[in-house]
Amino acid sequence: MTKQTVVVALGGNALLRRGEPLEADVQRHNIEIAVNTIAKIAQEYNVVLVHGNGPQVGLLALQGLEYKKVNPYPLDVLGSETQGMIGYMLMQEFKNQIPEANVTCMLTQMTVDPADPAFVDPTKPIGPVYAEAEAREMAEKYNWTIKPDGEYFRRVVPSPLPTGIIEHDAITTLIDQGHLVICTGGGGIPVKRENGKLVGVEAVIDKDMSAAFLAKQLGADALLILTDADAVYLDWGKPTQHALHSTTPEELKQYQFDAGSMGPKIDASCEFINQGGKLVGIGSLQDGLRILKGEAGTCIRGN
Amino acid sequence: MTKQTVVVALGGNALLRRGEPLEADVQRHNIEIAVNTIAKIAQEYNVVLVHGNGPQVGLLALQGLEYKKVNPYPLDVLGSETQGMIGYMLMQEFKNQIPEANVTCMLTQMTVDPADPAFVDPTKPIGPVYAEAEAREMAEKYNWTIKPDGEYFRRVVPSPLPTGIIEHDAITTLIDQGHLVICTGGGGIPVKRENGKLVGVEAVIDKDMSAAFLAKQLGADALLILTDADAVYLDWGKPTQHALHSTTPEELKQYQFDAGSMGPKIDASCEFINQGGKLVGIGSLQDGLRILKGEAGTCIRGN
Repeated sequence: MTKQTVVVALGGNALLRRGEPLEADVQRHNIEIAVNTIAKIAQEYNVVLVHGNGPQVGLLALQGLEYKKVNPYPLDVLGSETQGMIGYMLMQEFKNQIPEANVTCMLTQMTVDPADPAFVDPTKPIGPVYAEAEAREMAEKYNWTIKPDGEYFRRVVPSPLPTGIIEHDAITTLIDQGHLVICTGGGGIPVKRENGKLVGVEAVIDKDMSAAFLAKQLGADALLILTDADAVYLDWGKPTQHALHSTTPEELKQYQFDAGSMGPKIDASCEFINQGGKLVGIGSLQDGLRILKGEAGTCIRGN
Repeated sequence: MTKQTVVVALGGNALLRRGEPLEADVQRHNIEIAVNTIAKIAQEYNVVLVHGNGPQVGLLALQGLEYKKVNPYPLDVLGSETQGMIGYMLMQEFKNQIPEANVTCMLTQMTVDPADPAFVDPTKPIGPVYAEAEAREMAEKYNWTIKPDGEYFRRVVPSPLPTGIIEHDAITTLIDQGHLVICTGGGGIPVKRENGKLVGVEAVIDKDMSAAFLAKQLGADALLILTDADAVYLDWGKPTQHALHSTTPEELKQYQFDAGSMGPKIDASCEFINQGGKLVGIGSLQDGLRILKGEAGTCIRGN
C-alpha cells in the first residue's frame, strides 16, 4: 500500500531550546533527538519536513551586526543561510539514522503579497532585547521598526502570509520518487514579485503557516506540528486547564489562543482542514507518531 | 533533439571579486552578470551549476570569530550556510532571467577519504592574513594549522579529493526532469564516514575537482570551468606567453601550472577526459557559450 504523506513542522526551538547556548554541538545533539522521532514517522508516512529557524537566524543576525566591515545582510539572505545550516545538519542525521533513505534538502522561496497588512504593522520580534536608547539608535542606523517588550525594546518585522512556493515542482518530483524532503525551512525565504521579478523581502513567514500552505498545495494527508506544548490546552494556567484531544476548526473558533505561540498554529491547522485537509496533529516532539495515531497531543479534523 | 548536459563550474571570485567589499548588493550585482551568461548556455545545454564559495565562507568565518558569545562554527556547517546563501541568490536570478525554467538548488554533501594525504599536509589557505604572533595565538585557540604567506601567516586547511556525492539520486532525478540544478556548491559540504556514520570534516574540497567528479558521475557531455583567466596559457608572464586553444590531457602533462589556481583546474579537466568525458572548456565568464563552441578559451578533448 502506498504510504500517506505528512508535512511535519518542527519548531526552531526544538533544535535549540530557549536559554541553551547556540553552539553547533548543541544543535547537532538536539537534531539527533528530533530526527530519531521523525525517522519513526517516516517508517509509516512519506515525510516532508519544514523546520523553524528563529534562534539560528537570530545568531547569524547578531554575528553580522558584530562584524563591522560589512553591512548586515538582509533577512531573506540570512534565511537562506539557515536553510543551508539547519538543512545540512538534519539531512546528515536522517541519512545516518535511515541509511537506505534518499534524503534531499532544497532551498525554497515563498512568495508573499506586498499588500499583506503585516507590512503595515510588523509584529514578529527577532533578535535580542535592547535598552530604549540603543534600540532607537539601531532602528535609525538599520531602518528597523522597534516595539516595546516589557521594559526593553526589540526589533519587529512583518510576518506576512505565504502565497506561493517557487520550487513546487522539485518538491513534488522528489516526493513522488520517495525522497524524504526537507524544504521551506524557516517558513521559506520570503520573496515578492516586483515588476515581474522576484526580490527578497525583509520579513519572516510563520513556519507553521508555510507548512500548512505546503501541505495544502501537495494534497498531503496530514499536517503534524511538533512544538514545546504536549497538546492544545483550554484555560491555560487556570485551575480548569485541560487538553483538547480531538477537536474541529468549528470548536476551536470559540476560543482565543496566545497570538505569539499557539494562536498561529491553530490558525494554520484550521486553514489546512478548511481547505480539505484530513488531519492535523499538534503536540510535543517526543510524542511524534503517537499524535497522528490519536494516542497523544491534539488531533484536529473536519466535521 | 535532447539537449546535451554540461556541468558549469563558476568561481567564487566571479561572484565577489578580489578587493570588492563583501556586501550583499555587490554579490547580487555580480550574480546578475554571471547568470546572464549561464542563461545563454542553458538555451543550448542542460546546465548543472557548481559554484565556488571562497570569499563567502571567509566572510562567515570572520563574522563567527568576531561574535564572542558562541564558538566559531566548523567548516562543514559554514560551507552549508554558503550553499544556502549563494544558491538562493543564484536560483532567484535564474528564475528572473528564465521565468519558464524549473530551477532547483539542493544542499550537497561530498564524501572524502580520511586517509587522503591532504589531511597530513593542509595546503588550502582560508580567511585573512595575520601577523605571526596573532596567527600563533589563533592557531592555539582554535586548533588551526597556519603557514607563512609572504611576511604574514594564514590558516590552511586540507583540500582532499571528492570520493562520493550523497545526494546523487536527487540530482539525477531533477536533471532528468529538465531542471536547471545548482548543487555541490563550494565543492560540496565535506563529510567522511566514521563507524558507518557521516560526519562533517574540517576541510574544503576544490570546487573544480568536485565539478569534474560530478560531471563524470552524471555522464555529462561537457565540463565548463569559468574563471578569471580567458584561457589556459603557456609561459605565463614571459615574452613567449600564449594561449592554448585546443589541447589534450597528453599535451598538458608536459607542462607545469600554478598549483594555487590553474593547476587544479587542469588536473580536474584531465581527470574528466581520462575517465571518458568528451569536452572540457576553460575560460572567462564573459566568453561563456563561445568556449564550448571552440570560439574562445581553451578546449580539452581526448585523443
